[in-house]
Parts: sequence; structure tokens; C-alpha cells
Amino acid sequence: MREAKVDIALIHYPVYNKNHDVIGSAVTNLDLHDLARAGKTYGVRHVYVVTPFADQQKLVQEIVGHWQDGYGATYNPDRKEALAIIRICADVDELLELTKGENGEKPTVVATCATPKADTIPFGDAKTRILAGEQFLFLFGTAWGLTEEVFEVVDGTFPPIKGRTAYNHLSVRSAVSIILDRILGV
Amino acid sequence: MREAKVDIALIHYPVYNKNHDVIGSAVTNLDLHDLARAGKTYGVRHVYVVTPFADQQKLVQEIVGHWQDGYGATYNPDRKEALAIIRICADVDELLELTKGENGEKPTVVATCATPKADTIPFGDAKTRILAGEQFLFLFGTAWGLTEEVFEVVDGTFPPIKGRTAYNHLSVRSAVSIILDRILGV
Repeated sequence: MREAKVDIALIHYPVYNKNHDVIGSAVTNLDLHDLARAGKTYGVRHVYVVTPFADQQKLVQEIVGHWQDGYGATYNPDRKEALAIIRICADVDELLELTKGENGEKPTVVATCATPKADTIPFGDAKTRILAGEQFLFLFGTAWGLTEEVFEVVDGTFPPIKGRTAYNHLSVRSAVSIILDRILGV
Repeated sequence: MREAKVDIALIHYPVYNKNHDVIGSAVTNLDLHDLARAGKTYGVRHVYVVTPFADQQKLVQEIVGHWQDGYGATYNPDRKEALAIIRICADVDELLELTKGENGEKPTVVATCATPKADTIPFGDAKTRILAGEQFLFLFGTAWGLTEEVFEVVDGTFPPIKGRTAYNHLSVRSAVSIILDRILGV
């Protein structure tokens, strides 16, 4: 199967808290595992963990290291394989640099949001363009979501995920899994 | 929108461990949150947490209670609404009793598994039958998956979730989210 040129990023800064202040959120162990496992299943190239805080970057390195070189690597090789796709970076600017293609081409950057935005890219459109070889980067926010400054640098936004109710407060782990399945599921 | 008569259950016993021993696994806080939030989004009636261990049942009660009546209820009413659909039961026999319809009718019980089984129920078939009003119960295993004794009491099994790779080690949080989206997404 043709390689999908898709990277995903979990943004810990800048995001909103409950009071709409701009904050940096804490890294969650299970986010790393769930996103790496989903990413590996759907053929994502890298899962970028975006945080400017040195202690949080160190935490990510320690978690990934445990499963790459530590006891976890022999205890569960499947987990080793998944966590190998995690990369750490400091901010969105660095992320955009790191996700450029071999010839410096910028990916199409798509944000995710639980409320509708003007510049919607339907899931089916992204799927068609990815299967045709276009390079994409999907941004997922933690806490109460990506800040307006992030939406200013993206090329578009996926529509909110809709179930059969008006309730739309999925975890980021669920949102990543569902969006990857909608676009890269077979 | 017509109510979907779907319940889901997260089975902590009986499941296999890494060495294929039958064990009871520990309840994970984020499983409760993620499954409740996904269940609420997709209009699931109840999320059953199945564990025979009194201390684990108490832990589930405490977590749900924090978000129902404790500080969490005022801090995050959305979470209160989601966790309200959680129910606790001791084993699969009790689960099958509790999920019977008003007139005692048994739901169609479908297991989930990362490896293919003989009695596959395609996602599309389940969707059609649910939209026609049929009552379903989906079983999800923790740890290394549901034991053979569970597969003996089900009416069928969903096919493994396939991405674009041979890797199929999704978290149960991802698997639940993707299966609900495939069947109840709009």
C-alpha cells in the first residue's frame, strides 16, 4: 500500500484552559501510547508531541525511552514499535520546520476543533488528496483546545466529529483515533 | 433522531494476560472517562464496567461519584453528563441480565477482537440492524483480550479494525471510539 504522507501533532502549548487563558498543558502518559498505537495502525509517519517545557520534554523522552531501550522494550515489543514514531518539538514553528518534505515543501496543515470553523476541509476531501500523494499535518489540541493563534497558521480545519447526539466532548485520544480511521481506515 | 438501543461493556474479567492466563485486570480511570464521553457522543445508553472485585467496583463508584456529586460535578458539568451513563456489574452473566430490554428480550451480543473470528458481523450489518431498531450489546476486553469463554456466549464478533498497516494493537479507548464512529457516526 502506498505510504500516506501524514504526520500528526499533539499540541500542549498554546492551548486554552477552562477560563480561556492561554496555557501549556501537562503531557499525559496514555496520550503518548494511544496516539502512537493509533498512528502506527493507520500508517502515520510521526506523532509530534509539542511542548516548550524542558521538564515535560524530558518526561516524554523517559516514557519513550522506557519502551525503546528499557524494560518495556523486551516486555512489549509491539509497544516499542509504536512509540518509535514519537518525536518531540518545542512549538508550532519548529513543528512546521520538522514536517517539511525532502525538498522543503510544506504539508497542508489541518487543525481539529469541536466547534465548526469557516475554512472546513471535509474528511473525504483530505482522504482523496492524501491517497493522491499530498502531504498533510493534523493538529490536535489538549486541554480546552488550540488557541486562535494556531488557527491563523493552518490551511483549514476538519469539521467537528458528530455522533448521534449534541454532546461533543470527546477525549483527544478518541478524536485522533476517529479522524485517522475516517481518513486512513480501510 | 431515533434512539440507538446500544450498550457497551468494558470487561475486566475474564480476560487474558500476556501469558494467556485468565486474569482480572485493574480499572483505569481514563478508560471510564474516554468510554463515557464517546458513549455519550454516539448516543449509547450505558457503558457497563464489568469487574467482580469489590475494591475495583468501589474505585469506579468513587471516580463516577466525584464527577456526579463531588467537586467534578460543578467543575465540569459536561463530564458529569458523560459519566452518568456508567454502570457497574460483577460478571458477564449479570451483564446479560442487566442489558435485557423492557420485555426481557436479550440484545444481540457482539464481541470485539484484534484477530478475525469465524462468526463475523460486519460493521455495516450492525449499523443497518441498529438503525432498524434492533438492540445490541458490544463487548470490549481489557489487557490481552476477552477469553474463549466469553466468545462462547456472544452472537458474533466484529472484524478487527484495519488501518493501512499490519500493526493492530490499538488501545481499547481507540477501538471503542472507532467502532462507535463506524456504526453510529453521522
